[in-house]
Amino acid sequence: MKVDGKHYRTIWLKDEETVQIIDQRWLPHKFEIEDLGSVDDFCVAIKDMHVRGAGLIGAAAGYGMYLASLEAPKNSFDSYMKKAGEALKATRSTAVNLAWAVDRQLDAMKRSSSNQKVKVAYKTAQDIANEDAEFCRRLGVHGLPLIVEISRKKKGQPVNILTHCNAGWLAFVDYGSATSPIYLAHDSGIKVHVWVDETRPRNQGSTLTAWELGKHGVPHTVIVDNTGGHLMQHGMVDMCIVGTDRTTRTGDVANKIGTYLKAVAAKDNGIPFYVALPSSTFDWSLRSGKEIPIEERDADEVRYVQGLCEGKIKKVLVPPESSPARNYGFDVTPARLVTGLIMERGICRADEKDILRLYPERK
Amino acid sequence: MKVDGKHYRTIWLKDEETVQIIDQRWLPHKFEIEDLGSVDDFCVAIKDMHVRGAGLIGAAAGYGMYLASLEAPKNSFDSYMKKAGEALKATRSTAVNLAWAVDRQLDAMKRSSSNQKVKVAYKTAQDIANEDAEFCRRLGVHGLPLIVEISRKKKGQPVNILTHCNAGWLAFVDYGSATSPIYLAHDSGIKVHVWVDETRPRNQGSTLTAWELGKHGVPHTVIVDNTGGHLMQHGMVDMCIVGTDRTTRTGDVANKIGTYLKAVAAKDNGIPFYVALPSSTFDWSLRSGKEIPIEERDADEVRYVQGLCEGKIKKVLVPPESSPARNYGFDVTPARLVTGLIMERGICRADEKDILRLYPERK
Repeated sequence: MKVDGKHYRTIWLKDEETVQIIDQRWLPHKFEIEDLGSVDDFCVAIKDMHVRGAGLIGAAAGYGMYLASLEAPKNSFDSYMKKAGEALKATRSTAVNLAWAVDRQLDAMKRSSSNQKVKVAYKTAQDIANEDAEFCRRLGVHGLPLIVEISRKKKGQPVNILTHCNAGWLAFVDYGSATSPIYLAHDSGIKVHVWVDETRPRNQGSTLTAWELGKHGVPHTVIVDNTGGHLMQHGMVDMCIVGTDRTTRTGDVANKIGTYLKAVAAKDNGIPFYVALPSSTFDWSLRSGKEIPIEERDADEVRYVQGLCEGKIKKVLVPPESSPARNYGFDVTPARLVTGLIMERGICRADEKDILRLYPERK
Repeated sequence: MKVDGKHYRTIWLKDEETVQIIDQRWLPHKFEIEDLGSVDDFCVAIKDMHVRGAGLIGAAAGYGMYLASLEAPKNSFDSYMKKAGEALKATRSTAVNLAWAVDRQLDAMKRSSSNQKVKVAYKTAQDIANEDAEFCRRLGVHGLPLIVEISRKKKGQPVNILTHCNAGWLAFVDYGSATSPIYLAHDSGIKVHVWVDETRPRNQGSTLTAWELGKHGVPHTVIVDNTGGHLMQHGMVDMCIVGTDRTTRTGDVANKIGTYLKAVAAKDNGIPFYVALPSSTFDWSLRSGKEIPIEERDADEVRYVQGLCEGKIKKVLVPPESSPARNYGFDVTPARLVTGLIMERGICRADEKDILRLYPERK
């Protein structure tokens, strides 16, 4: 999407030997483009979260493998690539898209002749990135009519959409998941306004979502995570759209901690609650959200808050030094609270039957 | 309650001419006792929030009027006191207890002879503080059996209680409202553990509630406001107890923003949700929570977070400089989500009939 009027993706080829990314560690306070020239650069960039988000991590792994193919000695090409793939996979062991992209590259090269391997790696990297962008664009195409309908009912008054965390283009290659219908609506002239949950503890809402919406010109307002219920009670939210990290075949949705609280409040107020996801986010092996393991992260993410202070990025300690904290990364919103799933093949109810209507090959 | 083994109130007489308070602006990172020697000192302390919380503000106004009575010239005593009262009332115009305490002092002095007025002001100030502490203690006495009952069912395993914001002794003279049953349970040897919502934007949970529980020795864990729903889904919360800023005669409860989200999640998970309040918090004129005006505060409270950084108390900016924010201070939890009200006369259901059973004089 746009940054100060210019179109960007989160990752792109600068030239045949260099990939560029937006270094997301310093957003929203510094917009820095970083050059990555080797698979080692990619390992650092993924591990240290210069790039993050399921779709973007997959694309990064694809480009990382391409750079590895340029480095690989001819006489030990395959073993070099295998090692490079292992190194990439080890950077964030729970990222499903990371392993998937690495394996796709290894498969593609296995099936190609020696003198074509680099070319194939190049094409595969581009394909992975382009497919991610295209899938996200389609989520937008399918979600757009939901916003159009509300806009019509409100006679063109702004459609107020609440989102949680960052399921925006910064987490993918372009468009984003939850944000894709919003960008398409905005770009087609429909008045939208986004309530951005700050999303403690890591504040991906107030840092990343607010930044990308602002840079693209979408009206938005940052709120603390406590506020959404009050807004819903007062008719100030027309719909919620969130992303997901993992969704079961029965429609239970794991997403950033706090999503469940918004879903249960939306239900209490009769407000539609949608989840947008590329179908790669499904875990087809799971029948219940209770089977999804919830990552517990470093308590210091709760205890410290990072931001801009005197021109520098600093962290402040909020609670007493001696008070313990717990940091659960995700929660599970049961399917009964989800109005619908917005996917690249269309929209369906959050139940197995309707999901399989769109993905019959998963029966 | 206790701080490092020594009993404190939030406000007390140091000698006949000096009042001491805990300067709460620097908690939890600095514990500072401040001397207040004049009604002007009190105006600053209330306005700049060295003291805050309904009960404590009332007590502070009482002591402020006592110091004013020491300053007042004999030949213009009444007009001096009236002006002092007006100055105190102007410091925080929406604080009901502030005006109530000032008027109680003026009434008491009006009914006393000239040479008794200072003595009466002294006694009234002490009475206001003692009554606040005693009312809070009684909330604890009535709430304690709820915790005892859960503890018995859990065969002595820790009772997990979730609270939001600071309804602790720091907001009153002693004991607190929501915390009073918790302190009484802990002091009587029942195992309790408190989940402390950090309570963005001002973080009264992670700064004040965590500090006071920690100093008194009550086991507790700080969580971000997003976490409570997940804990409830996983059987990690046995009950919720919160305070309130204003409650209608029908049992609708205005409290810190985010309270409603916890109440609706508690309902969804079958977890009891209690509100503890001295009956002075009732607004007997209101029949619906929809009539309660919701204060909108400075958006910078959302945009900046204060904490300890390099040994100093600093603020960091979290979202983009250019992103707008909104800051609603409170929300209203409808009576249907409230299991019971814990008050100085006992516990009742959150409905008018049962409230009037305990307060028949309000019929």
